[in-house]
Amino acid sequence: MKINGKPTRTIWPSADNQAVEIIDQTKLPHQFVVLSLKTLAEAAQSIKDMWVRGAPLIGATAAYGFALAARATPDDDGLKAAYKILHATRPTAINLKWALDRCLAYALPLPVDQRAQGLWALAAEIADEDVAINSAIGDHGLALIRELWDGKKTFNILTHCNAGWLATVDWGTAIAPIYKAFDASIPVHVWVDETRPRNQGASLTARELNWHGVPHTVIADNTGGHLMQHGMVDLVIVGTDRTTRDGDVCNKIGTYLKALAAFDNKVPFTVALPSPTIDWTVADGVKEIPIEQRDAKEQTHMVGKTKDGAMVEVQVTPDGSPVANYGFDVTPARLITWLITERGRCAASAQGLKELFPESQ
Amino acid sequence: MKINGKPTRTIWPSADNQAVEIIDQTKLPHQFVVLSLKTLAEAAQSIKDMWVRGAPLIGATAAYGFALAARATPDDDGLKAAYKILHATRPTAINLKWALDRCLAYALPLPVDQRAQGLWALAAEIADEDVAINSAIGDHGLALIRELWDGKKTFNILTHCNAGWLATVDWGTAIAPIYKAFDASIPVHVWVDETRPRNQGASLTARELNWHGVPHTVIADNTGGHLMQHGMVDLVIVGTDRTTRDGDVCNKIGTYLKALAAFDNKVPFTVALPSPTIDWTVADGVKEIPIEQRDAKEQTHMVGKTKDGAMVEVQVTPDGSPVANYGFDVTPARLITWLITERGRCAASAQGLKELFPESQ
Repeated sequence: MKINGKPTRTIWPSADNQAVEIIDQTKLPHQFVVLSLKTLAEAAQSIKDMWVRGAPLIGATAAYGFALAARATPDDDGLKAAYKILHATRPTAINLKWALDRCLAYALPLPVDQRAQGLWALAAEIADEDVAINSAIGDHGLALIRELWDGKKTFNILTHCNAGWLATVDWGTAIAPIYKAFDASIPVHVWVDETRPRNQGASLTARELNWHGVPHTVIADNTGGHLMQHGMVDLVIVGTDRTTRDGDVCNKIGTYLKALAAFDNKVPFTVALPSPTIDWTVADGVKEIPIEQRDAKEQTHMVGKTKDGAMVEVQVTPDGSPVANYGFDVTPARLITWLITERGRCAASAQGLKELFPESQ
Repeated sequence: MKINGKPTRTIWPSADNQAVEIIDQTKLPHQFVVLSLKTLAEAAQSIKDMWVRGAPLIGATAAYGFALAARATPDDDGLKAAYKILHATRPTAINLKWALDRCLAYALPLPVDQRAQGLWALAAEIADEDVAINSAIGDHGLALIRELWDGKKTFNILTHCNAGWLATVDWGTAIAPIYKAFDASIPVHVWVDETRPRNQGASLTARELNWHGVPHTVIADNTGGHLMQHGMVDLVIVGTDRTTRDGDVCNKIGTYLKALAAFDNKVPFTVALPSPTIDWTVADGVKEIPIEQRDAKEQTHMVGKTKDGAMVEVQVTPDGSPVANYGFDVTPARLITWLITERGRCAASAQGLKELFPESQ
């Protein structure tokens, strides 16, 4: 999407193809810093230290990191070592493993001296495929917005967390339909949930919407129910980390509360997802998906900008008070109006998913 | 309640009765600072600058401020001027006006030279009455907890915002039943919603529970739904700023979302309220109660403690992103299991309230 009018992806090869460049997302929203990754070690660090985040972007970064490794050590042992190093950076990230498996399987049959060049092209292909998937999700979401919009008034969309282009290579998942609608001159306005802890809404979603010029307002996570009670939300769109074959959605903690409010107020609640996030092995998300606790510091501390522009971390809970930090929750399919995939939209149910993905049953 | 074992109220006369002492709540949770108010001006500033907050505590502080004014200017004009000054500090606070009306009506018929002493005693009486009301709410809430507790396992209670003793003179409203249960050796554990924006849960509720020794865990506002889905909440207790005659509850923004989650998971959702917060003139809270927006800075900025112990304010939203800050929402009576008042508990309905308060119809 655009940063101050200039089309920008979250990852791109440098002009001389000697490196791959990324935005250091740990500095957002207050500073815009581009980093150049020239080695396997730098690529691994960029994933591990969350300079890049979001499943699709992690996958693309791993692919470029693997290609950089192949320049130094293209033999089988070198590539297998690179696989291990990259995989260990975020071992639970499904896209990371998926991208690495694909790269390794592609490279091993190739002559050693063709691997580096081939893998560089494959990384670009993986990035382009992500863009195409998200663009298709955007098109299907745009069709829904066109159906729901009255043709006149501002169309208000609420979103939670960051499922925008900063989490992908371009477009985003949940935000792709919003960019498509904005670019099609539909007067969209986005309610951006702050998304505690970690504040991905306030820090990332607000930042990218602002860059592209999409009207938006940041709100506390507590606010969405009130807005829906008063007809101030026309559509909710969120992303998902994992979708079950029955249509339950595991996403950033708090998504379930917004789905309840949407259901109570008859506001359509939609989830945008690239099909690789569907886990066909799981049916009941609430019962079957374990929710891990994350680092307590995400809840006890917050990073912000002081009056002088310095980035400072402050403690916001009292000394001696324990905290819990559950990263995700599960929204049951019964609360979800539509799933929007790259193949179109469907009901959040086993039947709905089966019709879109008959080959996966 | 207790601070490190020592019984403490939020407001008390100094040992020599020359001043009234308060806790500067703007410094919580990181610093404990007691301030001595010796004049009308200091009392007015303590309310205006939110050194004290919470409707009952504001009322008691105003009564003491009025008594301090009577020491300097006990004549009718002096008292009426003091009324105006104190009333202007938080003009929408109902308890403030109620306390001032009572003080003025009490003082005017008295001989001028008896006013200061009489008003000082009346302020103490107003404070004691608040303690008695909250203690009664606590007793009725304790009875409910005894009914729900299985006699063995930890009893998990979720609360939102701060309706604890820091918002009152002592005990609190929503937290009073928790203190009573803890003091009665029932193994309670409290899930404390951080309560964005303004963080009254993380800053105040966690602070006071920790002082008194009640086990608790601070969570993001997004978390409660997940906990309820997994049987980790036995009871929700919140306070209220205003309750309609039909039992709708206007409370800190986000209360409605927790009520939806409690309803969806069959967790009892209770609201603790002193009867003066019932507004008998309003029936439908969602339609009739206007929700004002508060200062955007509560959402864009956050105060916390740095590694060096300094209190620092940081900006947490990007430059250029607008924010909205709705302070309250309305929870419809249909989602509320019980209202707990100083007279006992009742269904959240016109009928339920009528049975407890037949004289108010």
